Amino acid sequence: MPGQVQNPARVFPAVVEHAGAAGRVVLICEHASCAIPAEWGDLGLTPEQARAHIAWDPGALEVARGLAHRLDGVLIHAPVSRLVYDLNRPPHSLGAMPARSEVHDIPGNITVGAGERAARTAAVYAPFHSDVQAVVAGQLALGRAPVIITVHSFTPVYRGHARAVEFGVIHDTDPRLAQAILAASAHLPLRCEMNAPYAAADGVTHMLKMQALPYGLPNAMLEIRNDLIATPEACDRMAAMLAPVLAKAVADLGEDA
Amino acid sequence: MPGQVQNPARVFPAVVEHAGAAGRVVLICEHASCAIPAEWGDLGLTPEQARAHIAWDPGALEVARGLAHRLDGVLIHAPVSRLVYDLNRPPHSLGAMPARSEVHDIPGNITVGAGERAARTAAVYAPFHSDVQAVVAGQLALGRAPVIITVHSFTPVYRGHARAVEFGVIHDTDPRLAQAILAASAHLPLRCEMNAPYAAADGVTHMLKMQALPYGLPNAMLEIRNDLIATPEACDRMAAMLAPVLAKAVADLGEDA
Repeated sequence: MPGQVQNPARVFPAVVEHAGAAGRVVLICEHASCAIPAEWGDLGLTPEQARAHIAWDPGALEVARGLAHRLDGVLIHAPVSRLVYDLNRPPHSLGAMPARSEVHDIPGNITVGAGERAARTAAVYAPFHSDVQAVVAGQLALGRAPVIITVHSFTPVYRGHARAVEFGVIHDTDPRLAQAILAASAHLPLRCEMNAPYAAADGVTHMLKMQALPYGLPNAMLEIRNDLIATPEACDRMAAMLAPVLAKAVADLGEDA
Repeated sequence: MPGQVQNPARVFPAVVEHAGAAGRVVLICEHASCAIPAEWGDLGLTPEQARAHIAWDPGALEVARGLAHRLDGVLIHAPVSRLVYDLNRPPHSLGAMPARSEVHDIPGNITVGAGERAARTAAVYAPFHSDVQAVVAGQLALGRAPVIITVHSFTPVYRGHARAVEFGVIHDTDPRLAQAILAASAHLPLRCEMNAPYAAADGVTHMLKMQALPYGLPNAMLEIRNDLIATPEACDRMAAMLAPVLAKAVADLGEDA
């Protein structure tokens, strides 16, 4: 039965790749996986729903991997579907375990009570944020100046409306890096926009608030339209295109930032 | 030899008391202990230095315990001296492992290199913040509205200057709770001041930035002059005096805050 777990036997730590990377960029991919651990059954989803954009950000992990490789950055990604716990939402947000996503009901999330909410928070959210924080703190301890970049993808059609934006850069209260990325993107063959298709007011900057703002670290959230990264080759091309943009943006910030 | 640890075999988790408490207040005592684990020898300190205010906040834990008991709040406190790692400072801060504190050199901290800094961060800082975050996230998941209060004490004479303030309330960018506490303190037989003897500009609000601000939770840092809490009885009297003040301040904030 979905929604009945009270005290999960397992926790789901973040997956950390390139832990010893020497570059400044720390890449975070909160919606990397559509995996639903056995504890939560299938959440009542059809196989098609369980592989759709509501369950994860298709292509985001592959792009993030390509960026990590090219930028020599640490990559931290989620092992669990955002329908179990959306790591970019705080535990009291309804969106952390959404009962509905876009036009789809999520049956296993409709009757989530406080105990189940606490159990998923302990199993998925707390370990992930702890692991990210350990990476960031470790870099700070070593005297580095990490830059936090989260990598997402979005569906080209949302609630029946086509989205024209192709590459969105989103910031919270510190816009430095987002502005530098957008400036460095001017030559790209992509429709680039600031704070699109979402903005901080939509509650999408939780990871930045948690992991970058307390330390004053430069940070930004990237949103790539998922029809542009639908194959491994397309993901690699996108990473190849964005890596020099991010490198220039970080360089333009200077070492003090 | 102090300062030589690279990969500590042990980590030092936070101590959590009253984990199941039903009240809103989460009390944090970062400088609760003067214990220096064997890994760090005696940091080159004399026995007197190792028990002085430079190593911990005398009385703060006892006051925090008295508050936790009276307010039915969770209490989270540090197991290790702030001279090993000051949990209220980020890993890149020189103050996290100070080479000098007030008028005292800390020999074991004078030659701390990047590796040792990273090792102490991994052993002391990361686990503590992870544990606090798990408590806060757990309360949010249960639908509660936690209020974060850190409890500190300060020396009555600092670098030869006597301090008149007896009870300080310190805030970061969200002053709501600090203002409410100061307002509720008007009748106390204590000299109460806002942002004294320290303020956010002195870098003392790291815990609030890490654990309260990302969630928008009401928060404040309390500073009690340590000559007023020099005995267990005095600590209990102080807790008995401050508990209703904090309860009124929290109630005055309302449930939405």
